[in-house]
Amino acid sequence: MAMKSLTYFAVLYLLALTLPLAIASDPSPLQDFCVGVNTPANGVFVNGKFCKDPMTVSADDFYFPGLNIAGNVNNAVGSNVTTVNVNNLGGLNTFGISLVRIDYAPNGQNPPHTHPRATEGLIHFQFNLGHTPAVAIAALSSQNAGVITIANTVFGSNPRIDPNVLARAFQMDPNVVRDLQNRF
Amino acid sequence: MAMKSLTYFAVLYLLALTLPLAIASDPSPLQDFCVGVNTPANGVFVNGKFCKDPMTVSADDFYFPGLNIAGNVNNAVGSNVTTVNVNNLGGLNTFGISLVRIDYAPNGQNPPHTHPRATEGLIHFQFNLGHTPAVAIAALSSQNAGVITIANTVFGSNPRIDPNVLARAFQMDPNVVRDLQNRF
Amino acid sequence: MAMKSLTYFAVLYLLALTLPLAIASDPSPLQDFCVGVNTPANGVFVNGKFCKDPMTVSADDFYFPGLNIAGNVNNAVGSNVTTVNVNNLGGLNTFGISLVRIDYAPNGQNPPHTHPRATEGLIHFQFNLGHTPAVAIAALSSQNAGVITIANTVFGSNPRIDPNVLARAFQMDPNVVRDLQNRF
Amino acid sequence: MAMKSLTYFAVLYLLALTLPLAIASDPSPLQDFCVGVNTPANGVFVNGKFCKDPMTVSADDFYFPGLNIAGNVNNAVGSNVTTVNVNNLGGLNTFGISLVRIDYAPNGQNPPHTHPRATEGLIHFQFNLGHTPAVAIAALSSQNAGVITIANTVFGSNPRIDPNVLARAFQMDPNVVRDLQNRF
Amino acid sequence: MAMKSLTYFAVLYLLALTLPLAIASDPSPLQDFCVGVNTPANGVFVNGKFCKDPMTVSADDFYFPGLNIAGNVNNAVGSNVTTVNVNNLGGLNTFGISLVRIDYAPNGQNPPHTHPRATEGLIHFQFNLGHTPAVAIAALSSQNAGVITIANTVFGSNPRIDPNVLARAFQMDPNVVRDLQNRF
Amino acid sequence: MAMKSLTYFAVLYLLALTLPLAIASDPSPLQDFCVGVNTPANGVFVNGKFCKDPMTVSADDFYFPGLNIAGNVNNAVGSNVTTVNVNNLGGLNTFGISLVRIDYAPNGQNPPHTHPRATEGLIHFQFNLGHTPAVAIAALSSQNAGVITIANTVFGSNPRIDPNVLARAFQMDPNVVRDLQNRF
Repeated sequence: MAMKSLTYFAVLYLLALTLPLAIASDPSPLQDFCVGVNTPANGVFVNGKFCKDPMTVSADDFYFPGLNIAGNVNNAVGSNVTTVNVNNLGGLNTFGISLVRIDYAPNGQNPPHTHPRATEGLIHFQFNLGHTPAVAIAALSSQNAGVITIANTVFGSNPRIDPNVLARAFQMDPNVVRDLQNRF
Repeated sequence: MAMKSLTYFAVLYLLALTLPLAIASDPSPLQDFCVGVNTPANGVFVNGKFCKDPMTVSADDFYFPGLNIAGNVNNAVGSNVTTVNVNNLGGLNTFGISLVRIDYAPNGQNPPHTHPRATEGLIHFQFNLGHTPAVAIAALSSQNAGVITIANTVFGSNPRIDPNVLARAFQMDPNVVRDLQNRF
Repeated sequence: MAMKSLTYFAVLYLLALTLPLAIASDPSPLQDFCVGVNTPANGVFVNGKFCKDPMTVSADDFYFPGLNIAGNVNNAVGSNVTTVNVNNLGGLNTFGISLVRIDYAPNGQNPPHTHPRATEGLIHFQFNLGHTPAVAIAALSSQNAGVITIANTVFGSNPRIDPNVLARAFQMDPNVVRDLQNRF
Repeated sequence: MAMKSLTYFAVLYLLALTLPLAIASDPSPLQDFCVGVNTPANGVFVNGKFCKDPMTVSADDFYFPGLNIAGNVNNAVGSNVTTVNVNNLGGLNTFGISLVRIDYAPNGQNPPHTHPRATEGLIHFQFNLGHTPAVAIAALSSQNAGVITIANTVFGSNPRIDPNVLARAFQMDPNVVRDLQNRF
Repeated sequence: MAMKSLTYFAVLYLLALTLPLAIASDPSPLQDFCVGVNTPANGVFVNGKFCKDPMTVSADDFYFPGLNIAGNVNNAVGSNVTTVNVNNLGGLNTFGISLVRIDYAPNGQNPPHTHPRATEGLIHFQFNLGHTPAVAIAALSSQNAGVITIANTVFGSNPRIDPNVLARAFQMDPNVVRDLQNRF
Repeated sequence: MAMKSLTYFAVLYLLALTLPLAIASDPSPLQDFCVGVNTPANGVFVNGKFCKDPMTVSADDFYFPGLNIAGNVNNAVGSNVTTVNVNNLGGLNTFGISLVRIDYAPNGQNPPHTHPRATEGLIHFQFNLGHTPAVAIAALSSQNAGVITIANTVFGSNPRIDPNVLARAFQMDPNVVRDLQNRF
């Protein structure tokens, strides 16, 4: 696939002004690239994504600008996650990697969560103890890592989990559970 | 290993001022973590690294500050790579992931290279076409990706490759090869 | 390693009275088996476990009786998990698989949890809607899958997470968080 | 894919009366699930299975009842294997795991066999030395492990292997080989 | 899939006259085989290849004769590589392995190159120091390993890399770079 | 690990007279190489092999001459397998690949067998229908693939399998089984 290599070679010959993304990783590709596209309309689904026609692949499929732009942290938890994964950068498909930029307001937090398809799955969070905004870059070992925010998933599931079940699990009063379910 | 999970939970409860690193990825760990240490002095070597005694692991093993600091690009190629991998952030061991910050001077380049243990291995480079400094963040799918800079490896190997062999491979005059070997 | 194959052959020639365990799986072993042992006393740790001396391996290293015995469900959640993994069945080491037997009292639950090293990591639970005891067998794709019970990990971590952080994450009053932390 | 997580969450909220199956494992899924369906009729085949339309996935795709029911052991070898794999529980697709229940009559055997796509491939068998029926649960590290029963495969292949070839391999008289081939 | 096993069994019952290829390897197949076919004409692409209809698979899909035939080494580098991979032996698909026969003239070389999808990616070459022709057999851990010949890729890419960029990377005069680009 | 890369570079700069072996494959190495050594004498065992001290690695660790030499086929089955694996070519360690040369007398066979740690595990054999000697090269996807010859393993195991068990499995008379066990 020498021609494709050359194409990819040209792909990285790009203008890197401020925080462009240059991903270079590969767990087990079977060809030089398989730029992910949305599932075709004919109702056939696969594990992951189909590939874009290799003849139409260009530099734009591998380029994600704007990681230098701060996210809006005016929200309930005081943080914002900008995700760069296969859904907005198709070239990441089959490469097993993605990135996020996390912005934190002072005292902001990225609340307890897990990543079901990429990380070790331990529950983790970050909290900005400082008096100034903060920024973190995190890498994840999947092009489609996912995120399960604990509070939303447990108390905000749709359909609702029986409040009596959660009350026993969390040793709360069922009315407290119902109140939490109403907020999420 | 519930106690370890709690420890790790606390580990991420850190102050994120400016560009701290929060890695969260995991291809196939057999325990929650195995912070890499240098090979013990008794002459036993393994594929990868031995683990730090889990009882002595702390938050510092997972924390790498300073990605907000620009590298020095006053050099022959006009670029600088700051690498965060298992050798300077032991907590990355077994997680199959690392990060680099690349700084470019105007017209600076990260010259043609491959990553033998992490990337797809295609030869790639970046060149800053702009008139201002540039910064890129790249993620690699190995805690120890390595880098093979083409020019250095081909013309700067030690011991030297026979100039007549390289002359035939690159269709150069052997004297040009000898001259290049003297520069690298 | 023909002799080892023969040994293993004999290993499975066992008396299977009631619910003995016959595990047969293998993601990527480098030899026929590597029966896991605890880390040696000389302070060297690896990702996973060292192997038992192959010359001393016998049928007992691959045999786990008693899955037919019900667990005690007289506890806060009305369920009991009997785990068969590398820690109590060393022969599972390197085979990437383990099993659990789960007993449920009427209305008992296995509360919301994830498995950080084996499962897809989605939060899941089971609840026995029936009026009689129930039993489930679950297989997990790791010899050391781990379990993170959400409620215990979030509200019972040691050291405690700052109640104000959890209060914001779960949109609870900080006093409710403190009360939950005292229970777990 | 938050909505899918919630759906899956609900999926496991099921009635576990007697030996329901709750599989939770995952070697390398690229999305939360890919319930396997038979190859579509348009003649396109893939390695493994296509996915069911995620919008039509429900709890039944993850639920296999009846492991509490004994198999019929009135046969030549005195044993019965009840297999739960991707072919009768589509939700197992991409999860790399399956289960079998093995019933043994007194003196029954599960004859020498290997599992080509899941186990370590060593030839193994089980024999019930006891005077009562026995039951075993075995987990396998593939959603489609397969089984190659030695005697059937060697002497019962279709088309037949040349009896002279088998005679030399097994150091038998060719007429004995022909006789065995007639029985299988 | 017992019928397929029998088919494959017959497949290997072949006439092995001189250097026939009998590949037997398997990193992670989900079925006994998936003979690779070219992407169907309806414009759907996947990572790797679709499978040939299993009902039409025969011995020819697994058989590659002619490794005993020397390649033509009358060329610029004095060597020839005969590649056996998924593109000319469809049965290798999903088996993660391929083979090459390399012929060398006296003083011939297989010039510096890497294998982007199969090998460790280090740049390597072979040179025949002897006064007679030589032959090597090399195995690669991919059914589609690829090869990136350094000189061709760097100086022969299409479109051309800016000569000033290569001049700085290789510390050559830009005119020397232009001259090399004209040769490749 | 630039120095090691250069060393390996030199390693392949070898004299390739007749059928030298140049292996280039790599499933998941964590460093450029880990030349396998026998388990140290202090009684510590791992899955696979410990590494040779990298400072003492040389070209000989990657070089296996003699694949051009025919094996002795004067034996019961009329074939001979020359194996090149991690046990006689330490440099193959962690590379997940090995090679065999198989020689066949006229009418010789490589009898029915499986490879427990490398191949798909299906039972296979080769038979030379021709009237001249034949040679095959086979690649296997493990540095330590193993081989389980069916006849030897079933009828030649030590300790012996109860003849009545095998008689039932193979539908043979127990006396025929005893006779076969005496031959193997």
